[in-house]
Amino acid sequence: MKITKAVITTAGRGQRGLPAQSLVDRDGVEKKALEIILDEVVDAGAEAVCLVTAPGDEPVYRAAAGAHAPLLTFVTQPEPLGYGHAVLLARQFTAGQPFLHLVSDHLYVARGATRSARQVADLARAEGCAVSAVQPTRESVLRFYGTVGGRRVAQRPDLYEIQHVLEKPTPSEAEQVLSVPGVRAGFYLCFFGIHVFTPLVMDILAEQAALGRGGRPLDLSSTLAELARRERYLALEVAGQRHNIGLKYGLLTAQLALALDGVDREKILAQIVDLLAQRNSAHSE
Amino acid sequence: MKITKAVITTAGRGQRGLPAQSLVDRDGVEKKALEIILDEVVDAGAEAVCLVTAPGDEPVYRAAAGAHAPLLTFVTQPEPLGYGHAVLLARQFTAGQPFLHLVSDHLYVARGATRSARQVADLARAEGCAVSAVQPTRESVLRFYGTVGGRRVAQRPDLYEIQHVLEKPTPSEAEQVLSVPGVRAGFYLCFFGIHVFTPLVMDILAEQAALGRGGRPLDLSSTLAELARRERYLALEVAGQRHNIGLKYGLLTAQLALALDGVDREKILAQIVDLLAQRNSAHSE
Repeated sequence: MKITKAVITTAGRGQRGLPAQSLVDRDGVEKKALEIILDEVVDAGAEAVCLVTAPGDEPVYRAAAGAHAPLLTFVTQPEPLGYGHAVLLARQFTAGQPFLHLVSDHLYVARGATRSARQVADLARAEGCAVSAVQPTRESVLRFYGTVGGRRVAQRPDLYEIQHVLEKPTPSEAEQVLSVPGVRAGFYLCFFGIHVFTPLVMDILAEQAALGRGGRPLDLSSTLAELARRERYLALEVAGQRHNIGLKYGLLTAQLALALDGVDREKILAQIVDLLAQRNSAHSE
Repeated sequence: MKITKAVITTAGRGQRGLPAQSLVDRDGVEKKALEIILDEVVDAGAEAVCLVTAPGDEPVYRAAAGAHAPLLTFVTQPEPLGYGHAVLLARQFTAGQPFLHLVSDHLYVARGATRSARQVADLARAEGCAVSAVQPTRESVLRFYGTVGGRRVAQRPDLYEIQHVLEKPTPSEAEQVLSVPGVRAGFYLCFFGIHVFTPLVMDILAEQAALGRGGRPLDLSSTLAELARRERYLALEVAGQRHNIGLKYGLLTAQLALALDGVDREKILAQIVDLLAQRNSAHSE
């Protein structure tokens, strides 16, 4: 399976300013959050990227894309009609081909040399099917995530065949349909924010949009639940951490994670010690 | 002396995206950098604030101002004609009154309960003259700062009468004219980014602009040097730290300083420990 396109959604409520936030990446280079996300998808093989944005955001995001700006196509979501609706707006761009999909409010720090999106794209290429990155996640925070259930693939401790998808399940819903043998008790497989989707995802989204939803926004998880019924759909436990930069202190945590894992680790540790010393000496004056 | 107006310059090269960066303040409230700077000037008594911006930046900054947006007046600097030129563009706004002036790429963490800008404004009100905040700064980084020389005010270890101002002096220039008795050897008094200016500053800037400068940008330091010749002009060593958010890792350092000095200190310390533990366990796998 060839994957050369990526779709990134940025129009969500509260997400809008995030791609333009300034960070320093693991290599010590100053970049906007968007450029770091684009590094991730380009490393995974994307040659063209569609950004689905809220009206008016194109100039800021074009500037934030840095060297990747020539790869960008913009599609505007005029109203917040749902995450599924935002993805569907990129249907013409994807043109019947499989595509990588990332959200714009997460940054990833991989555990080894292979970046997170690359792990997902490589698996999708090898298996020829849709793949979503997942992470075992505590029951107490399920309300923030799309969550999958399924069965472990033989001989692969990090791979699952997805059978169910629920958006932000309650702990009791999760216990009934999303328990996965082999995953630690009290943990469930939640989306990590990186996916490779087949063209069928766009077809199901279009079907669901055509049905109308009585004014409710078009979500993505019910389409992915349907995808699991019609096609082989895998979940990969990626070796890495995600950092939601939209949360309070999310940018700080993401920046610390990048810095402590990167070339400037010693410098940043020294700075932390320095700040703690300053503060303590100020308070003991 | 009554001080109710503030001028903030944001049009400098490399400064433009900074006021829209997201941070969490000492009280644990999520804000843009601009809103935190506006908190500082409002706390110091500003009732109206003029932002000097590059063309096109007004909508982003208006949004970044949060609750302070109604206080704002915008003036556009069409071309980068210098820091002095940017300040002079606010002359009509200041209308012959003294005003507080801050740059938009610094955040301040005061040592005690009184914020840094308030320390400067209170002194200017009491003394009825221009005041610039300064900090003793190592000789090795003089190339980044406007630097003052003068003599210590009797009975006030934190106060100086300014006699000379040089922009980014070399160490030998500094040694010749900016040594201040009582300041530690190898240190000079550098601007901290907070000033109260009298109307004479605008007059001198206008004189200098009228002279023409052979195409060179209009700086601020030569006007302040002239101010020191014509009026009493004080330097106050403020009790606090400044953080230049335009530097590499400047946002990280500012955010850490705010967080480690604020209500979320314990949480942030725990997060740092957590990140260090994660990273170490990943590398020992």
